[in-house]
Amino acid sequence: MKSILRFSGVYLAETATTVGKKESEGPLSDFFDSHEEDVYFGTDSFEKAESEMVRRTLNILLGKANKKPEDISLILGGDLLNQCVATSFAVSKSQIPFLGLYGACSTIIESAIVASSFINGGLVDNAAILASSHFCTAERQYRFPLEYGSQKTPTSQNTVTGCGSYLLQNEQTSFRVREAVVGKIVDNGIKDANNMGAAMATAAVDTILRYFNESGAKPDDFDMIATGDLGIEGHEISLELLKRCGLNLGQNYTDCGMLIYDIQKQDMQAGASGCACMATVFGGYLFKRMKRNELRNVLLIGTGALLNRNSTLQNESIPSIAHLIHIVREEI
Amino acid sequence: MKSILRFSGVYLAETATTVGKKESEGPLSDFFDSHEEDVYFGTDSFEKAESEMVRRTLNILLGKANKKPEDISLILGGDLLNQCVATSFAVSKSQIPFLGLYGACSTIIESAIVASSFINGGLVDNAAILASSHFCTAERQYRFPLEYGSQKTPTSQNTVTGCGSYLLQNEQTSFRVREAVVGKIVDNGIKDANNMGAAMATAAVDTILRYFNESGAKPDDFDMIATGDLGIEGHEISLELLKRCGLNLGQNYTDCGMLIYDIQKQDMQAGASGCACMATVFGGYLFKRMKRNELRNVLLIGTGALLNRNSTLQNESIPSIAHLIHIVREEI
Repeated sequence: MKSILRFSGVYLAETATTVGKKESEGPLSDFFDSHEEDVYFGTDSFEKAESEMVRRTLNILLGKANKKPEDISLILGGDLLNQCVATSFAVSKSQIPFLGLYGACSTIIESAIVASSFINGGLVDNAAILASSHFCTAERQYRFPLEYGSQKTPTSQNTVTGCGSYLLQNEQTSFRVREAVVGKIVDNGIKDANNMGAAMATAAVDTILRYFNESGAKPDDFDMIATGDLGIEGHEISLELLKRCGLNLGQNYTDCGMLIYDIQKQDMQAGASGCACMATVFGGYLFKRMKRNELRNVLLIGTGALLNRNSTLQNESIPSIAHLIHIVREEI
Repeated sequence: MKSILRFSGVYLAETATTVGKKESEGPLSDFFDSHEEDVYFGTDSFEKAESEMVRRTLNILLGKANKKPEDISLILGGDLLNQCVATSFAVSKSQIPFLGLYGACSTIIESAIVASSFINGGLVDNAAILASSHFCTAERQYRFPLEYGSQKTPTSQNTVTGCGSYLLQNEQTSFRVREAVVGKIVDNGIKDANNMGAAMATAAVDTILRYFNESGAKPDDFDMIATGDLGIEGHEISLELLKRCGLNLGQNYTDCGMLIYDIQKQDMQAGASGCACMATVFGGYLFKRMKRNELRNVLLIGTGALLNRNSTLQNESIPSIAHLIHIVREEI
């Protein structure tokens, strides 16, 4: 069974990103389209704030791409809230056909793969994808009320407040979505919900190995190989496991969860996580570097931990998944 | 912007269904592949029970289709549990590439559309889709602990305990997946989480109207037009609204939520709901009637209410969605 899906005629046209205060104080600050100091985004609950953030980001995307809502064939995406409501309330007014996806923090890459499938087959001309997360909604849903002021463990990661939304289309641009690998769920038995990087690392390794084994590509062929949100701990584990399997990734191997914050100065333990981590770091930072021709050949591996709060309380392990896409810059 | 997606070379090969005790006591009892009297399905929690049910159903599908897990290119699906964990724990051991989808109770049709996109474009040879729900996990997640013995309102619907899983493929069978309409989110302002049929009815109407307006088909062209889980209340509302818009649906228009239980005898208020409602009623009952040549031309409209518990508590309305597929029996 082949692992790599090869797309024809699928291009990335534009991206839009919105982030919160902490993200706007990090090293990638200048790369985001918009940031908001108010954790409530002008609403009266964290959950409504996340929806408002998604709605704004989609509007920024439409503006940058010079499109009206009726020009968009399909929206695909999701978030971490129970039943993905941040996305559904945000998209509700748009009148654009919608497919809800759930891949935890891999959602932006899962959405890119599904959108590419519709465009590749000629079913639609374009599709907007999006993924969001919000520190405050994630903390109270997965962990504790913020008011507790609970202590963080060294392996814990900080959920990014942000949203990334991209436009994919059949009309040629310089950025081709060439290939994808759909992840398999991998469960290595890790049960510590404060160490999701370790749980997701083996899923990333599985997907990366399947890609390199089948494609025959070498790590040096890429300007950047970036995972979504393994964090420092998960990144180290994945490097070590890949090395044992004979794949030595070098300086071009990084993780979006290690890029968005100044981990020391901002006291971010093992780094960043959340659907918005890869969605904003690629959409804001890496895509702009592709536009500047600093990066031409990029592998993105979105990583997701498929747990919920009850599964942790019921002493279940953390099934994880990693989806991959390969984007190349081509001169047209 | 066209609404109808037309697929080429996508066929439904086989279905499998598992249901709980109440569903096995209803009028469609003989049509399901398997039923389980124990609400725990032999596990120690309702949530694990739902995963076990999904795992069993997938195994039944593989058995009926005479496939091994490694013969399946892709699994797509989801459920109602927070972060769709029933599905991810069930699929975890299968080693099959997985895409998680969330469309609430429309998930089985959303999955069919996305699977058809991958097969239509030649990206994969086949895909298994699935959707599940469990009365006990849904009650305690969305409403109250079962031990409260809370009273039901007349418009409330009973969540189906069950799972439906189907195999779609590029190899020809008598059952062609011909067309689809991806739903738009419709929010008519209804806030009563005990009347989801009314919230979803307008989404169903929107999708049905878009299909008939664009296709030029007439209601009489179809042997059956079935919505997912509008229930008695939502079904009546949708009939009335469609009539006002000039589309008179007749005896061939029904709702899976009105079929699975003997509503009077089993005291089921407005009928059934849940991801498993359409997934088991089509997979068990309607598909067998297509096999017997009693139904040849079927429109399925999966309906989903995109709320969560917090959105209701925060006094938000219920955004809803309806996805449509058109399946035809063709002699080969």
